[in-house]
Amino acid sequence: MVKLTYLGEFGLIERLSRLCPCSNAVIKGIGDDTAVLRSPVKKQLLLTTDMLVENVHFTRKTKGFLIGRKALACNISDIAAMGGIPKSAVVSLGISGREDSRFVDEVYRGIGALAKEFKVDIVGGDTVKTHQLIINIALTGEASMRDIVYRSGAKVGDKIFVTGELGNSLKSGHHLTFTPRLAESQFLVKKYPPHSMIDISDGLIADLGHILKQSKVGACLYEDQIPLRKGARVADAFKDGEDFELLFTLPPDKASLLRRQKKFNMTEIGEIVPAAQGYFLMDDNGRKESLNTSTGYQHF
Amino acid sequence: MVKLTYLGEFGLIERLSRLCPCSNAVIKGIGDDTAVLRSPVKKQLLLTTDMLVENVHFTRKTKGFLIGRKALACNISDIAAMGGIPKSAVVSLGISGREDSRFVDEVYRGIGALAKEFKVDIVGGDTVKTHQLIINIALTGEASMRDIVYRSGAKVGDKIFVTGELGNSLKSGHHLTFTPRLAESQFLVKKYPPHSMIDISDGLIADLGHILKQSKVGACLYEDQIPLRKGARVADAFKDGEDFELLFTLPPDKASLLRRQKKFNMTEIGEIVPAAQGYFLMDDNGRKESLNTSTGYQHF
Repeated sequence: MVKLTYLGEFGLIERLSRLCPCSNAVIKGIGDDTAVLRSPVKKQLLLTTDMLVENVHFTRKTKGFLIGRKALACNISDIAAMGGIPKSAVVSLGISGREDSRFVDEVYRGIGALAKEFKVDIVGGDTVKTHQLIINIALTGEASMRDIVYRSGAKVGDKIFVTGELGNSLKSGHHLTFTPRLAESQFLVKKYPPHSMIDISDGLIADLGHILKQSKVGACLYEDQIPLRKGARVADAFKDGEDFELLFTLPPDKASLLRRQKKFNMTEIGEIVPAAQGYFLMDDNGRKESLNTSTGYQHF
Repeated sequence: MVKLTYLGEFGLIERLSRLCPCSNAVIKGIGDDTAVLRSPVKKQLLLTTDMLVENVHFTRKTKGFLIGRKALACNISDIAAMGGIPKSAVVSLGISGREDSRFVDEVYRGIGALAKEFKVDIVGGDTVKTHQLIINIALTGEASMRDIVYRSGAKVGDKIFVTGELGNSLKSGHHLTFTPRLAESQFLVKKYPPHSMIDISDGLIADLGHILKQSKVGACLYEDQIPLRKGARVADAFKDGEDFELLFTLPPDKASLLRRQKKFNMTEIGEIVPAAQGYFLMDDNGRKESLNTSTGYQHF
């Protein structure tokens, strides 16, 4: 076992860079003061970041491979929710220095495997000594202006859709193994451009709440239409979070076309209503229950 | 005192975004899944990241303003060392949740003040609960291909220069208050393009070592020429680190021109020699002492 203490910071970065070969979009990757990347041509640049922390997003028992994989997957999910294509990532790793270097290699192997699958280049990083295991990834992406989908574009009458299933992501392990919905996002922006889109990280209620707030509209959710992951109740879908599914709204004509596609698992779960009608859940019998965004998962 | 526990994650990000107004290079800043930025035109994209951790890079007693300032300053220093101009940053903050919200505001004010000074847009971020205070910033930059300076371009016969003074950065507080050498970097790339450049974060010996290794050359340092910060000995300049000065090499003809400029404090401290001659220090009497890169600061 090579301990990190003996390997040193420079050795670690060099070693990890070998796990992640880069595309020709990268002029200079790991090993200089910054990465040098080809600029997107006729596209906008997207930028996002996520920090994962031991005992919040994973535990000491979580496999290193899955920790690394999740750290990148969350960021790809954000780029997908914007209608973009992920490109280049920088990785900051905070470790105690007492870890077996194979564990750290596994973290990078997890990043590298997903990076390869989604054609993301790992172009730089930082390693620091911390008490908890911490991994921060910042990811760039590209999108044509016409493909970008904001949270703020929902219109009254839009139908609300979600990919996959919701709830019970933490207990079921879905939060560690999910595939970011990039294929679904590209399918949507090219064929059925959504008015608004977000990925579900804080739970359906809180994340739909972001769309409603920024779009200045209300929503009605159909209780019996919400697709539930195995072992999940509606309340779990509402507030568990970490589903990393896409939540989006479409005008009625596009929605009726989308309902007929069979390529991806996408479910209509409600509709956008005027802000004055509020944010509510409707059951099978037409009974309404008011919802509020604080039902979602809060980190503090 | 508003405690973060009551403010919540969404409130925190919203509140902080108000401290950092953005330029028109930002199509969408904080508040969506990712930032949307105008792509550089006819320039390359630079990307870097740095993670600062309590009790490694600062302590609980360090003022929040200076912690935030340093987190951004380190990243700007990396962009400067590449010959680029900093553009957009995303900020991840790990806090215990027990902090006075004014402290966290101060961290962002420190980031915001330096961002304003260097025309950097704060375009997104993440907040997470951690034991230690942790701040990670990822920063983009732009540079024309002809302005980019790598670590790998040093040639035998090049003169070695450094900006400012070295050593004693931690005790003197310089590491918290330094101004990233962006003006110096732009002056150099436009008027005296260096063959190689790096910023000194791990100490002169280790960082010059990176240039030597990547350029496959050796170096002779002049012991009595090394500019020392107040209270620093040569040994401190060699290994203290966190100076955030630019270290660069120039061909002899450009070097003799640079020596005569009075605009910036830049000192010639040695020259590049063939790799076979090694890496050594020469004193006033011509006595040589061998140097090795492991003399630099190691994080593990």
